[in-house]
Amino acid sequence: MAPTTPRVVIPIDLTKKAWEQKRSLHNRWHPDLPPVAEVKVGEIFRVEMIEWTGGFISDNDSAIDMKTLDLSTVHYLSGPIRVLDKEGIAAKPGDLLAVEICNLGPLPGAEWGYSGIFDRENGGGFLTDHFPGAAKAIWHFEGIYTHSPQIPGVRFPGLTHPGIIGTAPSTELLQIWNEREGHLEETGFQSLTLCEVLHTRPLANLPTPKGCLLGMVEEGTPEWNKIASEAARTIPGRENGGNCDIKNLSRGSKIYLPVFVDGANLSTGDMHFSQGDGEVSFCGAIEMSGFLELKCEIIRGGMKEYLTPMGPTPLHVNPIFEIGPVEPRFSEWLVFEGISVDEKGKQHYLDATVAYKRAVLNAIDYLSKFGYTKEQIYILLSCCPCEGRLSGIVDSPNACATLAIPTAIFDQDIRPKSSKIPLGPRVMRTPDVLKCTYDGNLPITKNPGSST
Amino acid sequence: MAPTTPRVVIPIDLTKKAWEQKRSLHNRWHPDLPPVAEVKVGEIFRVEMIEWTGGFISDNDSAIDMKTLDLSTVHYLSGPIRVLDKEGIAAKPGDLLAVEICNLGPLPGAEWGYSGIFDRENGGGFLTDHFPGAAKAIWHFEGIYTHSPQIPGVRFPGLTHPGIIGTAPSTELLQIWNEREGHLEETGFQSLTLCEVLHTRPLANLPTPKGCLLGMVEEGTPEWNKIASEAARTIPGRENGGNCDIKNLSRGSKIYLPVFVDGANLSTGDMHFSQGDGEVSFCGAIEMSGFLELKCEIIRGGMKEYLTPMGPTPLHVNPIFEIGPVEPRFSEWLVFEGISVDEKGKQHYLDATVAYKRAVLNAIDYLSKFGYTKEQIYILLSCCPCEGRLSGIVDSPNACATLAIPTAIFDQDIRPKSSKIPLGPRVMRTPDVLKCTYDGNLPITKNPGSST
Amino acid sequence: MAPTTPRVVIPIDLTKKAWEQKRSLHNRWHPDLPPVAEVKVGEIFRVEMIEWTGGFISDNDSAIDMKTLDLSTVHYLSGPIRVLDKEGIAAKPGDLLAVEICNLGPLPGAEWGYSGIFDRENGGGFLTDHFPGAAKAIWHFEGIYTHSPQIPGVRFPGLTHPGIIGTAPSTELLQIWNEREGHLEETGFQSLTLCEVLHTRPLANLPTPKGCLLGMVEEGTPEWNKIASEAARTIPGRENGGNCDIKNLSRGSKIYLPVFVDGANLSTGDMHFSQGDGEVSFCGAIEMSGFLELKCEIIRGGMKEYLTPMGPTPLHVNPIFEIGPVEPRFSEWLVFEGISVDEKGKQHYLDATVAYKRAVLNAIDYLSKFGYTKEQIYILLSCCPCEGRLSGIVDSPNACATLAIPTAIFDQDIRPKSSKIPLGPRVMRTPDVLKCTYDGNLPITKNPGSST
Amino acid sequence: MAPTTPRVVIPIDLTKKAWEQKRSLHNRWHPDLPPVAEVKVGEIFRVEMIEWTGGFISDNDSAIDMKTLDLSTVHYLSGPIRVLDKEGIAAKPGDLLAVEICNLGPLPGAEWGYSGIFDRENGGGFLTDHFPGAAKAIWHFEGIYTHSPQIPGVRFPGLTHPGIIGTAPSTELLQIWNEREGHLEETGFQSLTLCEVLHTRPLANLPTPKGCLLGMVEEGTPEWNKIASEAARTIPGRENGGNCDIKNLSRGSKIYLPVFVDGANLSTGDMHFSQGDGEVSFCGAIEMSGFLELKCEIIRGGMKEYLTPMGPTPLHVNPIFEIGPVEPRFSEWLVFEGISVDEKGKQHYLDATVAYKRAVLNAIDYLSKFGYTKEQIYILLSCCPCEGRLSGIVDSPNACATLAIPTAIFDQDIRPKSSKIPLGPRVMRTPDVLKCTYDGNLPITKNPGSST
Repeated sequence: MAPTTPRVVIPIDLTKKAWEQKRSLHNRWHPDLPPVAEVKVGEIFRVEMIEWTGGFISDNDSAIDMKTLDLSTVHYLSGPIRVLDKEGIAAKPGDLLAVEICNLGPLPGAEWGYSGIFDRENGGGFLTDHFPGAAKAIWHFEGIYTHSPQIPGVRFPGLTHPGIIGTAPSTELLQIWNEREGHLEETGFQSLTLCEVLHTRPLANLPTPKGCLLGMVEEGTPEWNKIASEAARTIPGRENGGNCDIKNLSRGSKIYLPVFVDGANLSTGDMHFSQGDGEVSFCGAIEMSGFLELKCEIIRGGMKEYLTPMGPTPLHVNPIFEIGPVEPRFSEWLVFEGISVDEKGKQHYLDATVAYKRAVLNAIDYLSKFGYTKEQIYILLSCCPCEGRLSGIVDSPNACATLAIPTAIFDQDIRPKSSKIPLGPRVMRTPDVLKCTYDGNLPITKNPGSST
Repeated sequence: MAPTTPRVVIPIDLTKKAWEQKRSLHNRWHPDLPPVAEVKVGEIFRVEMIEWTGGFISDNDSAIDMKTLDLSTVHYLSGPIRVLDKEGIAAKPGDLLAVEICNLGPLPGAEWGYSGIFDRENGGGFLTDHFPGAAKAIWHFEGIYTHSPQIPGVRFPGLTHPGIIGTAPSTELLQIWNEREGHLEETGFQSLTLCEVLHTRPLANLPTPKGCLLGMVEEGTPEWNKIASEAARTIPGRENGGNCDIKNLSRGSKIYLPVFVDGANLSTGDMHFSQGDGEVSFCGAIEMSGFLELKCEIIRGGMKEYLTPMGPTPLHVNPIFEIGPVEPRFSEWLVFEGISVDEKGKQHYLDATVAYKRAVLNAIDYLSKFGYTKEQIYILLSCCPCEGRLSGIVDSPNACATLAIPTAIFDQDIRPKSSKIPLGPRVMRTPDVLKCTYDGNLPITKNPGSST
Repeated sequence: MAPTTPRVVIPIDLTKKAWEQKRSLHNRWHPDLPPVAEVKVGEIFRVEMIEWTGGFISDNDSAIDMKTLDLSTVHYLSGPIRVLDKEGIAAKPGDLLAVEICNLGPLPGAEWGYSGIFDRENGGGFLTDHFPGAAKAIWHFEGIYTHSPQIPGVRFPGLTHPGIIGTAPSTELLQIWNEREGHLEETGFQSLTLCEVLHTRPLANLPTPKGCLLGMVEEGTPEWNKIASEAARTIPGRENGGNCDIKNLSRGSKIYLPVFVDGANLSTGDMHFSQGDGEVSFCGAIEMSGFLELKCEIIRGGMKEYLTPMGPTPLHVNPIFEIGPVEPRFSEWLVFEGISVDEKGKQHYLDATVAYKRAVLNAIDYLSKFGYTKEQIYILLSCCPCEGRLSGIVDSPNACATLAIPTAIFDQDIRPKSSKIPLGPRVMRTPDVLKCTYDGNLPITKNPGSST
Repeated sequence: MAPTTPRVVIPIDLTKKAWEQKRSLHNRWHPDLPPVAEVKVGEIFRVEMIEWTGGFISDNDSAIDMKTLDLSTVHYLSGPIRVLDKEGIAAKPGDLLAVEICNLGPLPGAEWGYSGIFDRENGGGFLTDHFPGAAKAIWHFEGIYTHSPQIPGVRFPGLTHPGIIGTAPSTELLQIWNEREGHLEETGFQSLTLCEVLHTRPLANLPTPKGCLLGMVEEGTPEWNKIASEAARTIPGRENGGNCDIKNLSRGSKIYLPVFVDGANLSTGDMHFSQGDGEVSFCGAIEMSGFLELKCEIIRGGMKEYLTPMGPTPLHVNPIFEIGPVEPRFSEWLVFEGISVDEKGKQHYLDATVAYKRAVLNAIDYLSKFGYTKEQIYILLSCCPCEGRLSGIVDSPNACATLAIPTAIFDQDIRPKSSKIPLGPRVMRTPDVLKCTYDGNLPITKNPGSST
């Protein structure tokens, strides 16, 4: 007999708010969040998830929601899910939890997503010193393909994946996180390596009860207050997996997560229809609601067998990922390069972040010559299937980072030609992405040598 | 009539030293190096090149050459080549030079290469604080495949490419380089972002007459002395291309180089049979002598048409690359992740270099469980077709970098299993790579949480 | 505003029989079958479909259903669907109908399929003279992957597609079909080219009222009787598309179908989770119920603009297909070859069918050495993503056909080795496929030179 | 120590005729042809080869050589090569000879090839009843890419391979070949399945002393006379491999050949820069001179272990092929379909050859709409990397064959559009392929329903 249909262990009702769902969601990492569902190894189960802002961003003609989003409320995650072996014994700290992504897709009635830029004073992004104003593009899904009314002339197949998948941290691991990120927040300004203006982005996102949603733990109780003040924010990826944003983590992939608490307490969310390596505009992937169909295995004692700590404690480990065989096949790529010299001409030492920034800036300026605004390309490079590579990391003093863009996603030929640049059939400067003006007073970075 | 056989514009005689070749080689970038050859657009021509150390590293059983190499002598480049259009008019500053790689391969009689680790006091590498001693592995070529007696159980197809291809800088650009790198050398220790011990690597490689080879400029002349004291070292990639180490730049690729001097003055060298993204062990690609068959086009005025400066002057640009359709096709990848927390547990802010370091360390420790020494894997990850990605660069404070390794290059199954790790058919801890002991006195970094 | 959810124009209720569905199904091609639904160009709509036997084949432990299936009842198709342009004007004869497959998958609750062999006296298959008895294997779906309890040691990703998609024939085209196939039935035995025993398969499948289901045309009416006696069977592919069994016609593909009747009258069915080129065992793909999400365009006058008749009338055309960029990526293939010499050693003249038969026989015998029965491999090669190629078709007298099998679908290494064949970890001769004995009295073909 | 440079075991001097080469060539298969070279397993050796006509076809502006070629002289093969194991013991009948293709390419000075159509009275081709006149196109090689002055607007990477590789037959096997092909020649007209006019092509190519070249056996000797009258022609592929024309057999591939005589006596030739599946115009691949670098293994007793006879004797076997991981990567394909109904509208029974003929005819007519003559496309489809598939072989009475063409080889968009067909940038009807008029008197087939 064939297997039964995947059991929906966490359903989402898109007509309800994030905090009204049947299986309560959560937006923090904490060991004491009680599981909302239980699964056995070998079973295929379905987890539905709301888009990361819980529905705050709308399918409409304004970017005001991008400008005003309260970042303390994200990401809304589905879980925790407790995992048992065939005998009913829970996963234990020290085990590895292997999670296979069997299937995924949008929820019926929600075949759309969005990508955007945050305002520089509210989250920012990788190039926030160049692009300080909030902006938004809506993406329509047509099966595997997507296109946007705001970025015409482009269509591409999505490599859909969950931006966040992780296990609950133990009390000890949570404490490590809070200490090291708190320390950065206090002392980090001295050690900044990105262009100076980048420090207007928050250095870390520390625990705060503001905006906190804690699953089945009722707000206002002493337990809620304790957890809310300690629980880790979901924005960075960490030892438990979490917000890794690995764009290839699609159907047929497998994630080997370390287990830190009894039952593993798996959570997932932040689904992306497609993302470019780096997700540069921060809200840059095509954000969507959707479902995952998952299957778990427990590798008993797998942390010790397979993972080696890279830090002071045995908890300083990272997950391993296995990427499956089904990906869009692109034939030709145009590659932009950056070296670790910043826009002021200052030399940085093997700094891959600075190098990648310059590669992305190079790509934006280049592609904007083909009939686009720079905001359109900034968003496009956040969400299209482009690859960001650490090409050279040893040739002092320059790190060399590259950004490779599949040429087939454009309906015009974007390669350099001996003749002047022709504009493609569907491209014009209008329409443009939906925009909000930046009305802060921090300095904006320009390319000093550029005439435009 | 079909085209004639590619004309050899720069031949190499492997029985001779680098400085005895018929068409003189050079190992510095300078506007005043006179061209040694001239080609026309549309013509397919052949450039031969010696491996980057000029033959210092030998196909033998000792790593002593890796330990004692004088880094002031590298990289030996073939060129400069002056490029003319069909009317015989030279490329001009402001043009783009499009160089297509039609074909490439080893030189007859030299179907082998090597990968190695430099001693920490003589060059070091990305993980020099973990792997301070010099080491070497020899690679045998069997057509597209390579294997090494020092790293058994692994065989893979090469994506052969020139590590260095670039145009000559103008006087102004050279001055920019020397100023910014000199400034780093003077002040850089305060701004270091890698684990503290990494500062034992040279911050920059500044001009020095020591080891200088300047093509047709005769040593000892006033001209030689002037150029030798100014000319840029070849180690970092810069605005002129140079040592970009883009591992996919193989047959069918095209490079769009900015032209800074009359004739473009193209040079190339540092051929790699195969390289992993990042070339982490520094002498990490499979270094080889070889030939390129190239074809040039000139895009008149192309710098202004296609490139946008990302710095104070119009010279702050980068080349663009077009990657061709022929690459080895791998089905499954195992992916290791790193976040910007270092081995001491210290939090860094969106530092992709630290994140990638942790990803590589994770991969090394994992793969060493399958019967290898860590040096074997460190070298292997420098030269096998692995991909280093900037997966997430916006989720403060953690950059997330990943290293993806094609599973098919191993003759054992390297994926995590529920059972214990079995060893593959051909793998044993001996043989190991050829090694030299590190006898310096700088502290060595260990993984503090690891039991081994 | 993003597009609305695809409208379900033809729903399937799997608890009901094929003839009880809300939108009546049909199993014949005829111009007078009235449309059951209407769509506009640009609209994304959803068509659900029942597996080709209408649910006759069950998910159970017996092959008796494979043996007793009444082939006059297949294939149950969903449609016809009338297609209008944006102004509401129907597609016209002479137009091309472009149908894009946006998405597809199984129906919830039916995440399984089957592959089988028909009894030689009831349908047979490509190798029916070697494998005369009915057999069946059940396949379980785990997202993109499938595996079968009857064929252990194999798991592969599906390239899911509709086996049948086509437009309604005109009266004139239908008449052409009936005449030429009737003529073959009457005279064909003289012209048979396959091994002689193959003639026990029906030469053609001519119209018959037996088993006929005609959508909204009520059984027993004069109209029903007329249509039933004329309507073409669905088994062969023809000028209208139909049963083309093109295994790569998955997500992102586009089919350009000629329009022969007003409204185009599109029908589709026979969904396959996966199929090998040739679908050799006849019921060989992994047959399933499922859904398609489609989008249509009308190319006015496109038949004349793009298609050239290859026969006596302007109706002798074939559809064109565009294959999308998302397919499983396999690295290595093992290829079996056949030439047009049959099992008796007789030479045939450039007969690709005979050559392919020998290639498939070679593959079956080879793979059965790795712990399988021949029936297991015969079914596997019908449904796994293997490629059947016409490698050489001009070298008199031998056509050379090849069958390429991706080695990664097996969990053992199936390549020839210097040592003896080892058996893989999960393979044993039991379990085997579900079987029925052949109790007919036609001679069975063996490989005469084989010792087994 | 790295391996030595591949030893040239068979050199070719392109300034000499085929029969003047240092290591004598041969153009027949016979057990008594003495080896001209000897190699050991594990050794990488180099075999050079002349193009299949021995230099008769020239790089000039006339097709007269295509019209007048004496087909009794082809193919000129390099070999036989005797293969020994490490102990010096020769391969024995019953062994498998595994031959790995390490590297290959053109000979220096011969970076060009040609594709052509033979005159109908002198060889013909798959569509000789449509295209009876001889024609020729010259192809220029630019590294991995090729283009032709006669077929503008097209450029593609080659998947270079030897069209012929095989072992010598035993006396018994040779006799089987001669008997079955002789029998076909005598009786075959009754069993023809292709369109009737196709019988103007020779049914078989039987032994003949005319044009015979027999390596080291001196012409005029009794031995020469005996061999020449018995030796098999090289045109068809057979049990020993031979002219298989498997287009993917490029670098990194491995061929497992049955051994029929002591020493295996390996021969190879007929090098193709690129070929489409089927090589439809017969002289259709891009024919070239070139070299192979090979490595052999002997699998002792491998025929019995791995191959199963498919005919009356243990000699009725076929080689197995392993395709490597390096192939051009194409993203999108346009697919043409054919069914087994011929141009007269006659129904054939599951005849894949007829179906493929119709698919090719469909593709030719379609593509000729984009500014080409039909001869240009006929030749292009013979040599570009298109795939011919046996999509459906069981749906009586129609076989369904498909021809898939990568869209990226054209510099215009060849997909159907709602608007009229635009012509691409470089295409015009002139230049056309070099042509000779057909002055025979056999009837020419037209597409009866076509207006052109």
